[in-house]
Amino acid sequence: MESKSNPNFNYLTVLYNALIITMDSDSRVFRNGGIAIAGDKIKAIGHSSEILHQFSASAHHIIDLHSQILLPGFINTHVHTSQQLARSIADDVDLMTWLHHRVWPYESSMTEEDSYISTLLCGIELIHSGVTCFAEAGGQHVSGMAKAVELLGLRACLTQSIMDCGEGLPAPWAAITTDDCIQSQKELYKKHHNTADGRIRVWFGIRQIMNATERLLIETRDNAVELETGIHMHVAEIPYENLKVMNERKVDHGTVTYLEEIQFLRNNLLSAHTVWVTDNEISFLSRNGVKISHCPASAMRMLGFAPIREMLDAGICVSIGTDGAPSNNRMSIVDEMYLASLINKGREVYADGTTNPSVLPAEVVLQMVTINGAKSVLWENEIGSLEVGKKADMVVINPSSWSMVPSHDSISCLVYSMRTENVISVMCNGQWIMKDKKIINVNEEDVILMAKQASKKLLERAGIRIPNRMNFI
Amino acid sequence: MESKSNPNFNYLTVLYNALIITMDSDSRVFRNGGIAIAGDKIKAIGHSSEILHQFSASAHHIIDLHSQILLPGFINTHVHTSQQLARSIADDVDLMTWLHHRVWPYESSMTEEDSYISTLLCGIELIHSGVTCFAEAGGQHVSGMAKAVELLGLRACLTQSIMDCGEGLPAPWAAITTDDCIQSQKELYKKHHNTADGRIRVWFGIRQIMNATERLLIETRDNAVELETGIHMHVAEIPYENLKVMNERKVDHGTVTYLEEIQFLRNNLLSAHTVWVTDNEISFLSRNGVKISHCPASAMRMLGFAPIREMLDAGICVSIGTDGAPSNNRMSIVDEMYLASLINKGREVYADGTTNPSVLPAEVVLQMVTINGAKSVLWENEIGSLEVGKKADMVVINPSSWSMVPSHDSISCLVYSMRTENVISVMCNGQWIMKDKKIINVNEEDVILMAKQASKKLLERAGIRIPNRMNFI
Repeated sequence: MESKSNPNFNYLTVLYNALIITMDSDSRVFRNGGIAIAGDKIKAIGHSSEILHQFSASAHHIIDLHSQILLPGFINTHVHTSQQLARSIADDVDLMTWLHHRVWPYESSMTEEDSYISTLLCGIELIHSGVTCFAEAGGQHVSGMAKAVELLGLRACLTQSIMDCGEGLPAPWAAITTDDCIQSQKELYKKHHNTADGRIRVWFGIRQIMNATERLLIETRDNAVELETGIHMHVAEIPYENLKVMNERKVDHGTVTYLEEIQFLRNNLLSAHTVWVTDNEISFLSRNGVKISHCPASAMRMLGFAPIREMLDAGICVSIGTDGAPSNNRMSIVDEMYLASLINKGREVYADGTTNPSVLPAEVVLQMVTINGAKSVLWENEIGSLEVGKKADMVVINPSSWSMVPSHDSISCLVYSMRTENVISVMCNGQWIMKDKKIINVNEEDVILMAKQASKKLLERAGIRIPNRMNFI
Repeated sequence: MESKSNPNFNYLTVLYNALIITMDSDSRVFRNGGIAIAGDKIKAIGHSSEILHQFSASAHHIIDLHSQILLPGFINTHVHTSQQLARSIADDVDLMTWLHHRVWPYESSMTEEDSYISTLLCGIELIHSGVTCFAEAGGQHVSGMAKAVELLGLRACLTQSIMDCGEGLPAPWAAITTDDCIQSQKELYKKHHNTADGRIRVWFGIRQIMNATERLLIETRDNAVELETGIHMHVAEIPYENLKVMNERKVDHGTVTYLEEIQFLRNNLLSAHTVWVTDNEISFLSRNGVKISHCPASAMRMLGFAPIREMLDAGICVSIGTDGAPSNNRMSIVDEMYLASLINKGREVYADGTTNPSVLPAEVVLQMVTINGAKSVLWENEIGSLEVGKKADMVVINPSSWSMVPSHDSISCLVYSMRTENVISVMCNGQWIMKDKKIINVNEEDVILMAKQASKKLLERAGIRIPNRMNFI
């Protein structure tokens, strides 16, 4: 662990002979590129020959990538790490069953150890799908999450699940006051923000409008400004939410209109889902620099079609998230890229009356999981593209297996053909966290075993029973 | 090869200690199941203890599956094996560019050797995703396909791409007459039908209505009845198709209405896509026992939302296909299962005004890729479920890796969480064609290399150039 907590800034690694897709503002791609990494940062990037010429003598480690693809690490901007142990507890059920009889009983029964194990298991899946940084959507026991993130070597913006009102809450949650919410988050910020060599940041959370008083929203907004951090909130998920907001908060449309009215919409807000919004509300989001996390799979399954093309047209920074395991159930940003492109093409039939296979082209989807992801987590000065001076967060893709051959269009293949199988190695903060498909900092089998046991006990404790779909004998 | 062309019907294999999902009409699942396979057929199925008791003494090979899942092999009912070398040649382009400037020039420039290599590469991807049987959607050089299918050990219904009219056809295709079409298919039937130990069947093809005269349709219908085989056709893909049919063939809606009028709709028709159909047309399809191949990814990308829930409600047999590599680009039936469930849930927002996460539940999706697939390819007497007397076509799934843990609902996990990584071994016709992730009958690396070379040359020959999306330096 010593080398990870104290990265050696003089340690120089050179990777060469790669197709390097920088995702920089000039969209540069080096056909035969090389990169020099000093400690946790990118020191140089260019043609292999130049990089080798300049750094061969001084490098401690030189790696031939054999024409594989090097990309910035992917950024998953909406993931419930605490829900990983709940994979498949709520498939094919209606929304009320999902929330009141499955996910809330599960989450409210978690211990800190459960959150730790859940985040370890989730982190393994994130790393296998090329993720180096994620934004927690708001979960239980941030200290458990932080412990797992530190160990795995990932980068994350961690957020507590925050609710100070609402119907049908489990008893332990119903007792929590607005002051408790703010106080607890300030303490978590103090304890974990900027820890793990700066890989961990702590954000404020709002679970959703129906569980947030106006005072909680205002205080969250002001505290986030004061601490210079972000806010992660589920926004405009279902028509019912908008209706309830119209009735109870006296505005003429839904959540976004209300948030605009109380001046909650700021450029530090990461607004997840954001499916049911009007053109007017899109302009509020755009004008205030709000970031959107689009979660294609869970939106298709539970919510509806977010107007992503319109948001992008309005200049909004849209990134991609996987959501949580009971909503998806794959936590793979690679699959979400594929889905984002497909779903938003399909949506045109309804939005515009006709198919349009050229909507959300592959290069835009790649931006969404890299540089837009970085902007969404307020970290674009250090991650999201491969540029000199940025952190060495990157992923190595093998495009020469059956799942990606032939690659006549190397950019679109990353969105349409790539699968998690093709993600070979992952580096975060200058350290390999997966190498040749092997997770470096934890033993996968041990975590899987722990997760099976912990999740079984947790479901028993929460009284959750999943009915059989077939005739088990 | 000897053992494959002459399966030894006395050779007895026992697999035990598996969660066996039979997909039989009683939806039986053996928690700790065993199966005995004699030659190419299932001899017995039951609890592990019973199977071991009965067959341990006589079995030549006994395999402990260590609590893995055993399922019928998946059936992909719409795949263009000839298009595998065209993966990524037509991403994010409009439909006319897709057809006239990419796919038609590509397909019309293929040699028989190209079709062979393309089918080998496609077959490798099919096997990795658990497919044991597929229906070719209509492609070039059936003899090339047949050679690859025989070698790989797969089961298939092969179909030639058939067109006898239409606008903008490449020169070599424009010269083909109706008689040529029928004659060529009868010859292919004679040459390849019921070859490769009965694993290969030859079907009739109709590429699509805009490339088929009425005479071709009628003669195809009658010849298929005479030869007791199926017809595979793309139907009602885009609104323009229906409009053109209304104008030119004098019917009051589209392709399905016209096909009903000429009595083309029979229970041997596998109707692919079938997106733009009215309730009335759904009743024509249902009444005539037409089978539907739903291709979620390519429909989302290019066509629109097929009314799958309505078709299932009308009692239509709906199965799932991947379509071809330039339309999707993943040829994974595992991913299509996930998509089928997601997309048809999402579609409810538009069809019914509200989300409905319980539409197309996992058990229905599993039926679509197993028993419904078998019915769609007119082979349900021998495949599609694990039952005594049926062919031993099956797939072994490992649910204990990071991508599927925890599996609180073992059925839904197969649809929502499973990825191709979890497909471990595949048996077709009593022979392993993939074992522990290794393709048995061809060398994967050799095929990949051949495919890269052949596809490069083919694109040059066809004059297809793919523009760069980024700044390559």
